[in-house]
Amino acid sequence: MFKAMILLTRREDMTPDEFRRWWLEEHRPLALQLPGLQRMVVNIVDADPGETGIDGISELWFDTQADFEAAYATEIGKAVAADSMGHNRKRLRLFIDEHE
Amino acid sequence: MFKAMILLTRREDMTPDEFRRWWLEEHRPLALQLPGLQRMVVNIVDADPGETGIDGISELWFDTQADFEAAYATEIGKAVAADSMGHNRKRLRLFIDEHE
Repeated sequence: MFKAMILLTRREDMTPDEFRRWWLEEHRPLALQLPGLQRMVVNIVDADPGETGIDGISELWFDTQADFEAAYATEIGKAVAADSMGHNRKRLRLFIDEHE
Repeated sequence: MFKAMILLTRREDMTPDEFRRWWLEEHRPLALQLPGLQRMVVNIVDADPGETGIDGISELWFDTQADFEAAYATEIGKAVAADSMGHNRKRLRLFIDEHE
Protein backbone atom coordinates (compact mmCIF):
# COMPACT_ATOMS: atom_id res chain seq x y z
CA MET A 1 0.00 0.00 0.00
CA PHE A 2 1.25 3.49 -0.93
CA LYS A 3 0.71 6.33 1.51
CA ALA A 4 1.03 10.08 1.00
CA MET A 5 0.67 12.82 3.58
CA ILE A 6 -0.15 16.36 2.49
CA LEU A 7 0.61 19.27 4.83
CA LEU A 8 -1.63 22.30 4.39
CA THR A 9 -1.27 25.91 5.52
CA ARG A 10 -4.50 27.82 4.98
CA ARG A 11 -4.84 31.08 3.06
CA GLU A 12 -4.20 34.08 5.28
CA ASP A 13 -7.69 35.48 4.72
CA MET A 14 -9.35 32.27 5.98
CA THR A 15 -10.09 31.68 9.65
CA PRO A 16 -9.48 28.25 11.18
CA ASP A 17 -13.27 27.72 11.13
CA GLU A 18 -13.51 28.62 7.45
CA PHE A 19 -10.59 26.27 6.71
CA ARG A 20 -12.30 23.44 8.61
CA ARG A 21 -15.58 24.01 6.82
CA TRP A 22 -13.90 24.19 3.39
CA TRP A 23 -11.93 21.00 4.03
CA LEU A 24 -14.72 18.85 5.45
CA GLU A 25 -17.64 20.13 3.39
CA GLU A 26 -16.10 21.13 0.07
CA HIS A 27 -12.71 19.54 -0.42
CA ARG A 28 -13.23 16.13 1.15
CA PRO A 29 -16.24 15.15 -0.99
CA LEU A 30 -14.20 16.12 -4.06
CA ALA A 31 -11.07 14.21 -2.94
CA LEU A 32 -13.13 11.11 -2.16
CA GLN A 33 -13.81 10.89 -5.90
CA LEU A 34 -10.10 10.35 -6.71
CA PRO A 35 -9.94 7.12 -8.71
CA GLY A 36 -8.11 4.35 -6.86
CA LEU A 37 -8.22 6.07 -3.47
CA GLN A 38 -8.34 3.31 -0.86
CA ARG A 39 -8.62 5.35 2.30
CA MET A 40 -8.39 8.97 3.41
CA VAL A 41 -7.98 10.57 6.83
CA VAL A 42 -8.32 14.31 7.41
CA ASN A 43 -6.33 15.66 10.40
CA ILE A 44 -7.27 19.18 11.43
CA VAL A 45 -4.83 20.88 13.78
CA ASP A 46 -6.82 21.78 16.86
CA ALA A 47 -4.77 24.35 18.67
CA ASP A 48 -2.70 27.20 17.31
CA PRO A 49 -0.29 25.60 14.82
CA GLY A 50 2.33 28.04 16.08
CA GLU A 51 5.80 27.54 14.68
CA THR A 52 4.73 24.75 12.31
CA GLY A 53 2.29 26.90 10.36
CA ILE A 54 0.43 23.69 9.59
CA ASP A 55 -3.36 23.78 9.75
CA GLY A 56 -4.03 20.28 8.51
CA ILE A 57 -2.49 17.01 7.38
CA SER A 58 -4.31 14.67 5.02
CA GLU A 59 -3.42 11.01 4.71
CA LEU A 60 -4.14 9.23 1.45
CA TRP A 61 -3.68 5.56 0.66
CA PHE A 62 -3.50 4.05 -2.83
CA ASP A 63 -2.46 0.57 -3.92
CA THR A 64 0.70 1.91 -5.57
CA GLN A 65 2.49 5.21 -6.17
CA ALA A 66 1.59 4.84 -9.85
CA ASP A 67 -2.10 4.79 -8.87
CA PHE A 68 -1.56 7.94 -6.82
CA GLU A 69 0.14 9.76 -9.72
CA ALA A 70 -2.51 8.52 -12.16
CA ALA A 71 -5.32 9.77 -9.91
CA TYR A 72 -3.92 13.30 -9.86
CA ALA A 73 -3.50 13.24 -13.64
CA THR A 74 -7.26 12.80 -14.15
CA GLU A 75 -9.72 15.68 -14.47
CA ILE A 76 -10.97 15.06 -10.94
CA GLY A 77 -7.38 14.89 -9.68
CA LYS A 78 -6.57 18.23 -11.28
CA ALA A 79 -9.70 19.73 -9.74
CA VAL A 80 -8.70 18.37 -6.29
CA ALA A 81 -5.21 19.87 -6.57
CA ALA A 82 -6.52 23.21 -7.86
CA ASP A 83 -9.10 23.40 -5.06
CA SER A 84 -6.39 22.67 -2.51
CA MET A 85 -3.97 25.23 -3.93
CA GLY A 86 -6.75 27.81 -4.19
CA HIS A 87 -7.45 27.58 -0.46
CA ASN A 88 -3.95 27.15 0.95
CA ARG A 89 -0.83 29.23 0.79
CA LYS A 90 1.37 26.18 1.29
CA ARG A 91 0.85 22.56 0.27
CA LEU A 92 3.60 20.02 0.77
CA ARG A 93 3.39 16.38 -0.26
CA LEU A 94 5.34 13.68 1.55
CA PHE A 95 5.65 10.05 0.52
CA ILE A 96 5.50 7.80 3.53
CA ASP A 97 6.78 4.45 4.72
CA GLU A 98 4.12 3.59 7.29
CA HIS A 99 4.63 1.33 10.30
CA GLU A 100 1.53 0.52 12.32
CA MET B 1 -10.38 9.50 21.29
CA PHE B 2 -7.53 12.01 21.52
CA LYS B 3 -4.94 12.14 18.75
CA ALA B 4 -1.54 13.82 18.65
CA MET B 5 0.85 14.06 15.72
CA ILE B 6 4.53 14.71 16.35
CA LEU B 7 6.69 16.10 13.52
CA LEU B 8 10.35 15.16 13.73
CA THR B 9 13.44 16.59 12.04
CA ARG B 10 16.47 14.38 12.62
CA ARG B 11 19.78 15.52 14.05
CA GLU B 12 22.08 16.84 11.34
CA ASP B 13 24.72 14.18 12.05
CA MET B 14 22.23 11.33 11.46
CA THR B 15 21.59 9.88 8.01
CA PRO B 16 18.03 8.98 6.96
CA ASP B 17 18.95 5.31 7.51
CA GLU B 18 20.24 5.98 11.01
CA PHE B 19 17.10 7.94 11.77
CA ARG B 20 14.91 5.08 10.53
CA ARG B 21 16.85 2.51 12.57
CA TRP B 22 16.74 4.66 15.69
CA TRP B 23 13.00 5.25 15.35
CA LEU B 24 11.89 1.72 14.57
CA GLU B 25 14.37 -0.22 16.70
CA GLU B 26 15.07 2.06 19.67
CA HIS B 27 12.40 4.69 20.04
CA ARG B 28 9.28 2.77 19.06
CA PRO B 29 9.70 -0.04 21.64
CA LEU B 30 10.16 2.67 24.28
CA ALA B 31 7.15 4.71 23.16
CA LEU B 32 4.95 1.60 23.09
CA GLN B 33 5.39 1.47 26.86
CA LEU B 34 3.61 4.83 27.34
CA PRO B 35 0.78 4.14 29.78
CA GLY B 36 -2.65 4.57 28.21
CA LEU B 37 -1.38 4.56 24.63
CA GLN B 38 -4.16 3.07 22.48
CA ARG B 39 -2.49 3.06 19.09
CA MET B 40 0.66 4.37 17.43
CA VAL B 41 1.63 4.79 13.77
CA VAL B 42 5.15 5.71 12.66
CA ASN B 43 5.34 7.57 9.32
CA ILE B 44 8.84 7.78 7.86
CA VAL B 45 9.27 10.29 5.05
CA ASP B 46 10.52 8.32 2.07
CA ALA B 47 11.93 10.86 -0.30
CA ASP B 48 13.94 13.97 0.39
CA PRO B 49 11.83 15.98 2.84
CA GLY B 50 12.94 19.08 0.94
CA GLU B 51 11.37 22.33 2.05
CA THR B 52 9.45 20.70 4.90
CA GLY B 53 12.55 19.49 6.75
CA ILE B 54 10.34 16.77 8.18
CA ASP B 55 11.81 13.27 8.41
CA GLY B 56 8.96 11.60 10.23
CA ILE B 57 5.50 12.03 11.68
CA SER B 58 4.25 9.91 14.55
CA GLU B 59 0.58 9.47 15.32
CA LEU B 60 -0.47 8.68 18.86
CA TRP B 61 -3.95 7.94 20.17
CA PHE B 62 -5.06 8.10 23.80
CA ASP B 63 -8.55 8.00 25.29
CA THR B 64 -8.30 11.64 26.39
CA GLN B 65 -5.86 14.55 26.29
CA ALA B 66 -5.48 14.16 30.05
CA ASP B 67 -4.25 10.58 29.49
CA PHE B 68 -1.76 11.87 26.93
CA GLU B 69 -0.42 14.52 29.33
CA ALA B 70 -0.33 12.01 32.19
CA ALA B 71 1.64 9.51 30.08
CA TYR B 72 4.37 12.06 29.34
CA ALA B 73 4.54 13.00 33.03
CA THR B 74 5.57 9.45 33.99
CA GLU B 75 9.17 8.25 34.11
CA ILE B 76 8.69 6.33 30.88
CA GLY B 77 7.09 9.40 29.28
CA LYS B 78 10.03 11.57 30.28
CA ALA B 79 12.41 8.97 28.84
CA VAL B 80 10.45 8.88 25.57
CA ALA B 81 10.56 12.67 25.24
CA ALA B 82 14.27 12.84 26.15
CA ASP B 83 15.10 10.10 23.63
CA SER B 84 13.18 11.96 20.94
CA MET B 85 14.77 15.31 21.72
CA GLY B 86 18.20 13.69 21.85
CA HIS B 87 17.88 12.39 18.29
CA ASN B 88 16.05 15.26 16.61
CA ARG B 89 16.82 18.92 16.14
CA LYS B 90 13.15 19.78 15.87
CA ARG B 91 10.11 18.17 17.49
CA LEU B 92 6.69 19.73 17.11
CA ARG B 93 3.53 18.41 18.70
CA LEU B 94 0.12 18.99 17.11
CA PHE B 95 -3.24 18.15 18.65
CA ILE B 96 -5.57 16.76 16.05
CA ASP B 97 -9.25 16.61 15.26
CA GLU B 98 -9.34 13.45 13.15
CA HIS B 99 -11.93 12.66 10.46
CA GLU B 100 -11.75 9.22 8.89
